[in-house]
Amino acid sequence: MDNDFLLQSPTAQTLYHECAEHLPIIDYHCHLDPRLVAEDHRFRSITELWLDGDHYKWRAMRANGVEERLVTGREASDWERFEAWARTVPYALRNPLYHWTHMELRSAFGITRRLNPETARDIFDQCNERLHDDPSLSARGLMRRYGVEMVCTTDDPVDDLRHHRRLRDEGFDIKVLPTWRPDKAMQVDQPEAFRSYVERLSAAADMAVRWFPDFVDALQRRHDFFAQMGCLLSDHGLTAFEAEAWTEEGVSAIFDKALGGTLPTERECAQFRSAMLYIFAVQDYEAGWAQQYHYGPLRNTCSRLYRQFGPDAGCDSMGDRRTAESMARFLDRLDREGRLTRTILYNINPADNAMVATMIGNFQDGTLPGKVQWGSGWWFLDQRDGMEQQMNTLSTQGLLSRFVGMLTDSRSFLSYPRHEYFRRILCNLLGQDIEAGLLPFDGYEHDRIRQMVSDICYYNAKRYLRISRPTRPTPDPSL
Amino acid sequence: MDNDFLLQSPTAQTLYHECAEHLPIIDYHCHLDPRLVAEDHRFRSITELWLDGDHYKWRAMRANGVEERLVTGREASDWERFEAWARTVPYALRNPLYHWTHMELRSAFGITRRLNPETARDIFDQCNERLHDDPSLSARGLMRRYGVEMVCTTDDPVDDLRHHRRLRDEGFDIKVLPTWRPDKAMQVDQPEAFRSYVERLSAAADMAVRWFPDFVDALQRRHDFFAQMGCLLSDHGLTAFEAEAWTEEGVSAIFDKALGGTLPTERECAQFRSAMLYIFAVQDYEAGWAQQYHYGPLRNTCSRLYRQFGPDAGCDSMGDRRTAESMARFLDRLDREGRLTRTILYNINPADNAMVATMIGNFQDGTLPGKVQWGSGWWFLDQRDGMEQQMNTLSTQGLLSRFVGMLTDSRSFLSYPRHEYFRRILCNLLGQDIEAGLLPFDGYEHDRIRQMVSDICYYNAKRYLRISRPTRPTPDPSL
Amino acid sequence: MDNDFLLQSPTAQTLYHECAEHLPIIDYHCHLDPRLVAEDHRFRSITELWLDGDHYKWRAMRANGVEERLVTGREASDWERFEAWARTVPYALRNPLYHWTHMELRSAFGITRRLNPETARDIFDQCNERLHDDPSLSARGLMRRYGVEMVCTTDDPVDDLRHHRRLRDEGFDIKVLPTWRPDKAMQVDQPEAFRSYVERLSAAADMAVRWFPDFVDALQRRHDFFAQMGCLLSDHGLTAFEAEAWTEEGVSAIFDKALGGTLPTERECAQFRSAMLYIFAVQDYEAGWAQQYHYGPLRNTCSRLYRQFGPDAGCDSMGDRRTAESMARFLDRLDREGRLTRTILYNINPADNAMVATMIGNFQDGTLPGKVQWGSGWWFLDQRDGMEQQMNTLSTQGLLSRFVGMLTDSRSFLSYPRHEYFRRILCNLLGQDIEAGLLPFDGYEHDRIRQMVSDICYYNAKRYLRISRPTRPTPDPSL
Repeated sequence: MDNDFLLQSPTAQTLYHECAEHLPIIDYHCHLDPRLVAEDHRFRSITELWLDGDHYKWRAMRANGVEERLVTGREASDWERFEAWARTVPYALRNPLYHWTHMELRSAFGITRRLNPETARDIFDQCNERLHDDPSLSARGLMRRYGVEMVCTTDDPVDDLRHHRRLRDEGFDIKVLPTWRPDKAMQVDQPEAFRSYVERLSAAADMAVRWFPDFVDALQRRHDFFAQMGCLLSDHGLTAFEAEAWTEEGVSAIFDKALGGTLPTERECAQFRSAMLYIFAVQDYEAGWAQQYHYGPLRNTCSRLYRQFGPDAGCDSMGDRRTAESMARFLDRLDREGRLTRTILYNINPADNAMVATMIGNFQDGTLPGKVQWGSGWWFLDQRDGMEQQMNTLSTQGLLSRFVGMLTDSRSFLSYPRHEYFRRILCNLLGQDIEAGLLPFDGYEHDRIRQMVSDICYYNAKRYLRISRPTRPTPDPSL
Repeated sequence: MDNDFLLQSPTAQTLYHECAEHLPIIDYHCHLDPRLVAEDHRFRSITELWLDGDHYKWRAMRANGVEERLVTGREASDWERFEAWARTVPYALRNPLYHWTHMELRSAFGITRRLNPETARDIFDQCNERLHDDPSLSARGLMRRYGVEMVCTTDDPVDDLRHHRRLRDEGFDIKVLPTWRPDKAMQVDQPEAFRSYVERLSAAADMAVRWFPDFVDALQRRHDFFAQMGCLLSDHGLTAFEAEAWTEEGVSAIFDKALGGTLPTERECAQFRSAMLYIFAVQDYEAGWAQQYHYGPLRNTCSRLYRQFGPDAGCDSMGDRRTAESMARFLDRLDREGRLTRTILYNINPADNAMVATMIGNFQDGTLPGKVQWGSGWWFLDQRDGMEQQMNTLSTQGLLSRFVGMLTDSRSFLSYPRHEYFRRILCNLLGQDIEAGLLPFDGYEHDRIRQMVSDICYYNAKRYLRISRPTRPTPDPSL
Repeated sequence: MDNDFLLQSPTAQTLYHECAEHLPIIDYHCHLDPRLVAEDHRFRSITELWLDGDHYKWRAMRANGVEERLVTGREASDWERFEAWARTVPYALRNPLYHWTHMELRSAFGITRRLNPETARDIFDQCNERLHDDPSLSARGLMRRYGVEMVCTTDDPVDDLRHHRRLRDEGFDIKVLPTWRPDKAMQVDQPEAFRSYVERLSAAADMAVRWFPDFVDALQRRHDFFAQMGCLLSDHGLTAFEAEAWTEEGVSAIFDKALGGTLPTERECAQFRSAMLYIFAVQDYEAGWAQQYHYGPLRNTCSRLYRQFGPDAGCDSMGDRRTAESMARFLDRLDREGRLTRTILYNINPADNAMVATMIGNFQDGTLPGKVQWGSGWWFLDQRDGMEQQMNTLSTQGLLSRFVGMLTDSRSFLSYPRHEYFRRILCNLLGQDIEAGLLPFDGYEHDRIRQMVSDICYYNAKRYLRISRPTRPTPDPSL
């Protein structure tokens, strides 16, 4: 994992080091806690950074036979949990966690030794000492260290965005923008939770929400507020796309039913979600935002873990529902009405890769390059094979050149090396093709490919999100 | 993209240049307009050849942000549209269009420069000058240039096949045969269109079509006529395989309903399509034809484009319906009754690859090698990755040696280099395996592999289609 | 196919020859006939060994145009059938059968010539002579020759396991253990067959089976008997996972219905199967067994062949049903109740690979490493591409290190070279990664990777199955 890690040809090395390595990071979809940025959080230990919230690592530890007490248990010490992870790491060879772990150790802490039971204690101590002593390893410090220019967090409509506001008011040099994620406004299949959500929405929007039109108005008020706060895009977590026929009256009645504590039928729930998806998309169109759809997971499959920890306990996996037809119907209605804004689709099951790669081509309308995007390998696919498959399939079915590229989708301030990982993989693919004579690399095309790399790593996302504020020119030179 | 383009080992080069390169082309499935051949059409410009009908290019242009006026607009000049395409080409690096574009420029026009904004005007002028001056770039000229021995067009049962007749009567040295594609005879889900189709069928068959038995008789008459005109195979475009239970009475009633202008239920439509699929298959069996099934697309997803252009506007993509069980039931009934003719299955979604590759093995009956075929990578899969995956999966699940190989499926007279593309990819795969020690390449097996290449590129299709007429021995030597 | 066959780097060669090659074989899932072991069967000819029961070869022969008389026909001579296979072999280049055929010739008979029409007669005679003369080519001899330590056969609950008993009583040095495969106890969709099965079960369990509780008791008695006979694991062949809601009363009524000769509804059949799957899983948990699920095939698709030969005629292929949600519900109920035993999931359609690879991660509970396993490439996927895809996807989604590795799933005493095939492929993958700098291979990790290879090839399965009896230390040195 040296300087040319993953770069298996001289051309790949040139492309990476000259066109990709030094570009800033636009992390347009993540789950960072904005409070930690606002407070410039100092991490108590590498255990906090690595193990307090990372369900990827939890899954690997459980698969390695580590007891739950050392995985998510709060009573175990930081060292105990770190040690359990260090024992797991050598069993995770070939898993992306193995590469990420060492890229993070190197880029954040300058540690190039490999983590295993023999080095665990040293590395634990060294990291913690650095975290304690070095202010550049705070939340903000890490963002600067990795050359982050902008992050978009993931926020509920009822959130008051106080941390985003504080960061804006303070003039923090890295943009930390909210993303509108209104999943809870669709959950009529959980009437009790829905009712309590409507109450919170009512309070946030400062208006009574009695009927469905109030509900939509309140959401619109919050949408307007998010826009004022600099929000550029929405995000939706879906089990599957749904595009059932619905009427305003029908949906109003379903709303009343759920609010009254009655569980609507499955079909009614689907109609309600279909309606909300449409309404949200129109709001996004009118606000000039981009919209993202992450679809397909099977969530909270293990009720034991869900009962103990709630969501994101590490028991989500890939679903296998058919969704092509409803996805097409959903997008078509918006396109037909001239209300389809820039859209990014993310699938979780790679069996859907080619389907999604061709779907986006149906709704490109020539108003801007790459208006409808197939998002970078998501969640379980956010690793070398997944990224390569996504980029290869996108290449054959569309225009890789117009791809908006990588995001971390992460809760962790240590996940930025995934951008490096992605960039290396991209450059390696292109280098491979060039050296095999599949791509030209001289004259006009020489410059085009170099620009293509920079575009995918940075400029495409910047243009796509219409970011106008001057950007930090280069990443932290101390890196 | 030189002489050894895609041939990444000496063995691959040998196989291609000695066993594949010079074989004639049997293009047993395409969408060429037979009128253009009959009239030996001269093309007004490279724009006509490339952009008047190619929805692959249209999709790439739209994805590149090109406005519709320059994509499909008839009011834009040939130069404007060509220039818009030339701007798109460098953004299509890694897309098969990039390779196809340059293979076509080289093989038809002798142009080896790369198309980009800097070369666009020169290339445009040079191509058009050649098209204007050189009679060997007419429709027939191009077919000769590429060493085409036979093409099978795609024709509706009501077509009078006048152009095919003229070509036959004139004794054109390349066979241009019709293919029976009766999709419209299944469309009871569009009663109005169905009624008008029945009227056209009635006229074509020169008989009244009042009841379902008339309908079948009229189709049989046309089937007989196609057979007289040299037709060797049928083709069916399906959303999914269907094998619902049906009775003659039930289907007759559905026919009456649709003809009377009433929309049958979804289930009735499925029964009607199931019946017709069976009836068509029996007709094909009795005529000794092969039959092809192209299944799986989601068509006309963008109603805006469909309204403007009708079908094939570039807004079709991959569906994701389950189809294994109905496909098996459909094939089994025919097999059980001893009425399963040679059959080629094409799937559009690569998630179905392995399923189809194993399905064909169920119905091989030892009457001839490779009786049931899995067709070459189709539509979105007709590119390097798609072809490689199809050939690799076919290899592991069946007998690659018996594969009937490539077809263009194209509307364009410039698409024949896709056969070259395919042949290079095939030879490269085999060369790779040989050089890795996975295949022997001496003694008996040396000759076997060489013959295998020639078989897949040419002889298997020839045998499969039972072509008897003497063939042109080699492609046009001027190439 | 020399000593370094499939080992495309020096590191791969080292790993294979030093860490994998000489380990014994634990074949924890196969379909060997225990009678042949008990009787130490001598094979009359290579035709018996290769063609009497191998539907893989039958399918290849049919696809090659070989008439059924020479495929499965009992009236054709051994030579005729062998010759038909020898003609097919050179057409099977790139199919795993090509490699297996030659690995079997070499490892069992010392024949290194390639099988083709020119060598067929010699090879036929040579094999048969050896089979006749050499007692080390008997059923037991072959097992010793390949270094087999243990096999688990596949047995019905009504089987009396007399052959297993004889082998145990004789003290045969290779463990031959039964596996509990109660598929027939779920077939209420075939009332007649079900009734007759219940009668056989009643006889085997030596108790009257009148009601559903009797049925469960009788199965439990047989389960206890299998446990006494050394059974370590169960196996279930499913079309799809099912996890319908059911009640004891409901299921009892369905049982009565089927036993009374009435076909239950589809939903009732699904409920019954759901109930039995759960009940079986609880029995396995209580006995401390592991459980295996092989799901997804479409069986007996060709009714012509099924009528002639019954099941396993070579007309099974891959299904494409959705199953993620029911699989999750099934596993979750067991996990929630603390009754989920060690579990191995095998999918037949590679479109499900990633889904299953992530599913297993949901139910790892830290009680032992790799408690829930994704089984090695099964049936159609039991070949190089299939194995590589399984190992690559398992690597990215879980812990390859904890994988229990290969099994033959075979009826043939000549299939053990598939373990060699698997081991070579595993070592090649790791060698590739190491030489590309993706994996470290020095210090602690050097030893870890070597141990990982040995674990996957042997020790993981041994630990997983909790095999306690002393094992044969090394394979037969005569190899």
